Amino acid sequence: MSHPKSKHDEHPLKNYKIVLEYDGTPYCGWQVQAKGQSIQGVIQEALKKLTKEKVSVTASGRTDAGVHALGQVAHFKSHTTRPIARFQYALNAMIAPTISVKSMEEVPLEFHAQLDAKNKLYSYLILNHTVPSVFMDRFSWQVPKPLNWDAIHAALEILVGEHDFKSFQSVGTDLKSTVRKIDWVKIEECFKDHPHLYAIQIQANGFLKQMVRNIIGTMVQVGQGRVAPKDIKKILEAKDRRKAGPAAPARGLFLISVQY
Amino acid sequence: MSHPKSKHDEHPLKNYKIVLEYDGTPYCGWQVQAKGQSIQGVIQEALKKLTKEKVSVTASGRTDAGVHALGQVAHFKSHTTRPIARFQYALNAMIAPTISVKSMEEVPLEFHAQLDAKNKLYSYLILNHTVPSVFMDRFSWQVPKPLNWDAIHAALEILVGEHDFKSFQSVGTDLKSTVRKIDWVKIEECFKDHPHLYAIQIQANGFLKQMVRNIIGTMVQVGQGRVAPKDIKKILEAKDRRKAGPAAPARGLFLISVQY
Repeated sequence: MSHPKSKHDEHPLKNYKIVLEYDGTPYCGWQVQAKGQSIQGVIQEALKKLTKEKVSVTASGRTDAGVHALGQVAHFKSHTTRPIARFQYALNAMIAPTISVKSMEEVPLEFHAQLDAKNKLYSYLILNHTVPSVFMDRFSWQVPKPLNWDAIHAALEILVGEHDFKSFQSVGTDLKSTVRKIDWVKIEECFKDHPHLYAIQIQANGFLKQMVRNIIGTMVQVGQGRVAPKDIKKILEAKDRRKAGPAAPARGLFLISVQY
Repeated sequence: MSHPKSKHDEHPLKNYKIVLEYDGTPYCGWQVQAKGQSIQGVIQEALKKLTKEKVSVTASGRTDAGVHALGQVAHFKSHTTRPIARFQYALNAMIAPTISVKSMEEVPLEFHAQLDAKNKLYSYLILNHTVPSVFMDRFSWQVPKPLNWDAIHAALEILVGEHDFKSFQSVGTDLKSTVRKIDWVKIEECFKDHPHLYAIQIQANGFLKQMVRNIIGTMVQVGQGRVAPKDIKKILEAKDRRKAGPAAPARGLFLISVQY
C-alpha cells in the first residue's frame, strides 16, 4: 500500500531570494539566540505563519546586535503557492516597522545566500560634530572633536588589497584563513543637510568577525592623531588583535549590499 | 535698610534664541500638557537644572503630538553666566537623543520667537510605495497605491497666494482671521536611495491649526482621483472644514525652518 500524496508532493519546493532592510537597534543580531529577539527569528516566525511550514532563513552572513542593513540578502525554501508579490506584501505587514523585505524573487534551488556571496559592501556613519543629531542618533557614532580625515583616508588606503586581517578580527571564531581582499574604500560626506556626517565605505570579498568595526575604531584613533597612517602596515603585519584599536559601536554600521 | 543685592541684580537677564531639531514620535507635542511628556517640558526641566532658575521657553508655534522639527525656533530668558558654547553642550547632553539644540545665540531682549516670526517652512514626507521603509517609518506616511503627482501639483498651485484657509483649519481655535498667504509650494523626490519618497514643501506667513496636515490629506485624495484639482478652489471658497479631506498623520510632518 502506497502512502497518500502529501501536499509537498503536489507543490514543488521553491527557493526564494529576499533583500532586507532593517534597523538593528532593537535586535540581538541576525541570528536566533537563546535570549533576545533576532532578525532571523522574526522573519522565520512570520514565514511559519504564512506558509504553515517550518522555514529556515539563511543570510549572506550574520550581523551583530545593533548593526543595520540596507541590503542584507537571504534565502529560504518553501512549498507555498502564494503569488510572489502578495507573499512579499503579507510578509512585510507582519515584520514592519523595523524589518522590511525590499524585494523577493524565485531563484534556482541551488542558490545559497551565504556560500554564493562574492562581495559585500559595508558603510559606517560617523557624526563628527559636537551637536548631536536627533535623526541620525540610532544610525551613527558621534565623535565630537574634529578628526583628521586626510589621515584617515591615507590609513584606509593601506588596507586596500589582499591582506591577512587577523589584527582586525574579534575573538570567538575559528576560521582557517584570515586573509581577505578589500576591493576599495571611500569616505563620503553623506547629505547636504548633514555636513558633519561622514560615511566610510568598505567593499571586500569577505569580512572577519567585527572587522569593519575594528577597522573604524582604529581609523578614529588615526583621525585623533593617536595612530599614524604608516602604523597601519605594522598593525596588519602583527596579526595581533591587541595592536589595532577598539571596536567602533554597532549603531553606525550598515550592510549596504551583497554581490553574487 | 536696603535689601542685599540678589544674584539677579549682579547678572543681567539675557535672551537666548535656540534652533531645535526633534523627533516628535514620543512626545505629546511642543506644549506642556497635564499628561504626557512635551518637548517644551523636557527643555524647561533641563534649563531649570542648569540655571537654577524657573525658565519659560517660547517657540515660534506649537507642533502637534508626533510632529517633527528640523528647525523649530524658540527663545528663553536667563541670568546664567555660562559661556554659550558650554551652555549649549550641557543642554544637549541632557535632552538627547530625541531633542537637539542645533544652535544657540544671545539676541536682544525684545526678540520673541512667536511674535516676530515672518514665515515658516513645513515639509511633509509621503512614501508612495507598497514596500515599507524601515528608516523612514517614523518620518513619513506610507500610501501604497501610486498617486497622480501631476494632479497633486496642479491642486497645490491653487493654494498659493493669500486665501482664507478656514476649510483647512481644525476645530478648537478662536482666531480672528483665517487668512494666510502661502508663498510657494514644491514637490521633491527626496533621496536617490528613496525613489518613492516625496516631500511636499509649503512656505507661508503663518499656518492655522493642523493646516498642513489638512492640506496633505486633501492632496492625497486628489492624487487618488477622488477630488479634482479644480475642486480646490471650491473647497477654499466654502470656508467649511467638512469640505476638505481628513488630516494626514502627524508622523510625516516636519517644521523645517522659521524666518524672522
